[in-house]
Amino acid sequence: MKILILNCGSSSIKYKLIEMIGEQTLSYGLMERIGMHDGLLYHHFQKDGELKEKKMVREIPDYNTGVKLIINTLIHSDYGVVSDTSEISAVGHRVVHGGEKFASSVLINSDVRQDIRDCIELAPLHNPHNLRGIKACEMLLSGIPQVAVFDTAFHQTMPKWAYIYGLPYLLYQKYDIRRYGFHGTSHRYVSERVSALIGQPIEELKIITCHLGNGCSIAAIEKGKSVDTSMGFTPLEGLVMGTRCGNIDPTVVFHLIGREGLSLGEVVTLLNKQSGLYGISGVSNDMREILQEIKENNSRASLALEIFCYQIRKYIASYAGVLNGADVIVFTAGIGENVPLVRQKCCEKLAFMGVNIDEEKNDAAIGKESIISRQSSKVKVFCIPTNEELIIARDTKKIVQSLKGE
Amino acid sequence: MKILILNCGSSSIKYKLIEMIGEQTLSYGLMERIGMHDGLLYHHFQKDGELKEKKMVREIPDYNTGVKLIINTLIHSDYGVVSDTSEISAVGHRVVHGGEKFASSVLINSDVRQDIRDCIELAPLHNPHNLRGIKACEMLLSGIPQVAVFDTAFHQTMPKWAYIYGLPYLLYQKYDIRRYGFHGTSHRYVSERVSALIGQPIEELKIITCHLGNGCSIAAIEKGKSVDTSMGFTPLEGLVMGTRCGNIDPTVVFHLIGREGLSLGEVVTLLNKQSGLYGISGVSNDMREILQEIKENNSRASLALEIFCYQIRKYIASYAGVLNGADVIVFTAGIGENVPLVRQKCCEKLAFMGVNIDEEKNDAAIGKESIISRQSSKVKVFCIPTNEELIIARDTKKIVQSLKGE
Repeated sequence: MKILILNCGSSSIKYKLIEMIGEQTLSYGLMERIGMHDGLLYHHFQKDGELKEKKMVREIPDYNTGVKLIINTLIHSDYGVVSDTSEISAVGHRVVHGGEKFASSVLINSDVRQDIRDCIELAPLHNPHNLRGIKACEMLLSGIPQVAVFDTAFHQTMPKWAYIYGLPYLLYQKYDIRRYGFHGTSHRYVSERVSALIGQPIEELKIITCHLGNGCSIAAIEKGKSVDTSMGFTPLEGLVMGTRCGNIDPTVVFHLIGREGLSLGEVVTLLNKQSGLYGISGVSNDMREILQEIKENNSRASLALEIFCYQIRKYIASYAGVLNGADVIVFTAGIGENVPLVRQKCCEKLAFMGVNIDEEKNDAAIGKESIISRQSSKVKVFCIPTNEELIIARDTKKIVQSLKGE
Repeated sequence: MKILILNCGSSSIKYKLIEMIGEQTLSYGLMERIGMHDGLLYHHFQKDGELKEKKMVREIPDYNTGVKLIINTLIHSDYGVVSDTSEISAVGHRVVHGGEKFASSVLINSDVRQDIRDCIELAPLHNPHNLRGIKACEMLLSGIPQVAVFDTAFHQTMPKWAYIYGLPYLLYQKYDIRRYGFHGTSHRYVSERVSALIGQPIEELKIITCHLGNGCSIAAIEKGKSVDTSMGFTPLEGLVMGTRCGNIDPTVVFHLIGREGLSLGEVVTLLNKQSGLYGISGVSNDMREILQEIKENNSRASLALEIFCYQIRKYIASYAGVLNGADVIVFTAGIGENVPLVRQKCCEKLAFMGVNIDEEKNDAAIGKESIISRQSSKVKVFCIPTNEELIIARDTKKIVQSLKGE
């Protein structure tokens, strides 16, 4: 059974074709600059036991054209990996916001499409693109089941006291303003994976998962269910990220609008695109460049790193307070998987809760599944590369099989 | 040595006259409705070994008139406690915002007045009133030293990574946007007091202080110095409070302005006056009424209590991550001193860090200094009534004595 995974963003599409027997990736790629004359497709494919690459430049005016190009590439005689679209059993779509309607993945039909459309208010920058990808597939791969896997779904198990803000309750009832949380597929993948790695049922574990990429979030996971997470109504809340500010005093917004005369849109841009590591350091949103600058004695880059790690440490401890301690901490995503210094600094002063990092193991754990705590550490600390597409593929397979009554 | 303490707020003045020998309160009172025809003064005074009360209704058009009435009352032959203003050795003023200029209390002169004026931008609702009180005293008690004690000063020891937000650094450099923290005098008082109570030098202690009144804040105190606190640029940030929202996704502000069409001022009011316990419960900002409503099965009141305590618990654990554990937790202010149920719920699931509450001791600790943890509890937990005026009086005395070279 071959499953196509689509992740449609703003003017871009990421895709992956997975053979579910052995969960092998047959092909993956990235399309950029949709809507431009010089759209780009970076296509990777397995051929004769080798991973090969094909780059294309094309005019890609819209998502339909984009999805069509991807499909035609996948069935191409030279750089394709299947001979016909009929070999694709299903399509799994990453959808950012499922609101309160979706606590799990779901087969897409017209009702589901409408529900995703209803969530556009909550994710105006994401859900419209996700819907465009869905529509294109329905047209181009007619008759092939489409499944939606939501970034928010995993966090729908949070208790009410974790997701209701200290705001007038009417804002929740009338406008759905509450904590939703994101990166759910990633938090779910690494928590399930770490449970398999240590050979202990997830129902018996208290896990704190740290997804540290350009976007960053932390989740407290009890018995396999998310009970709290740092991102909120939108992905702006929580940790300091690449260019997002994370938690701030809300009064700052009034100050910038009322006193500094910025427009609402300018403040939105400032908090989302000009803040975080980039805003503090003034040089980059990329942790690799921050580390390089620190080597060159850039004190603002050092400050950015300190703040980044300090906030993660506070969240980890805070979630130990949610779970009454922790059995496992997992670091994942770009920074979490690849930057030992960040992991080490995040775990400083957590000895009180039983965290004890093994420096050598930590330094060696770059981009691969590894335990980075000492044997004696009460809390096991792991580095685990995330794999959101695999969760999407597995959910899609499960739903398609249940359709067939298998 | 008798010291007068003044706390000038919006259309109100709180005062206290303290005899520093034995630190006895000779008189205290509250003036309300300044600027109205029916201004009110509730005056309490010691006479013949008894605490007596005198209520007055007067037109109090401004702060000068208000301070004059207070002074005339204090020297009144019937309900005064001193015979002449010359018996007042100094005045200690509570000033809300000292910005980065004041890390400790200070004798007021024209430079200091200007610095307090410069901080009006940061505390437009507070510093102007504090200044009015200072000016009135300078006029009416000419020649008597005036001392300013700042709510922010105690937190000026925070390290940079705790006070810089994940915002463009320019906002800090240009507009002083950073975490300041408030309730500093209270956090300082209870941390010094608890160190005295357990007979251990404060330099050896890691203390987490929870000031839970109508405004709420938590501080992490290491070796007697504040290293982090929950209130930020303004007192809006941090915990859910009586009517303030505490931490929210900053995007909520854009949502309310951009989509719901509220004005900036309406959103400020909504977050500061219509949120918190009041906003969630829909019934009250007063914990006593919330508890009453819970007895009557009001589920929104229950939710308000759960959220309130859950957030405090998360902060306590988070600050254990700042300090690498804690030796002492202190609860203070209206709710912290008087509501055992809140203290108990805040300490739930903190066993992992060594917190073990004694239910009986906790239930008995209402408005009095008490240890509420079990003998076996690694972390000692206390209820300590706060006394900000005493800190103001002591600082004032110290500064006045150093003036005299005593």
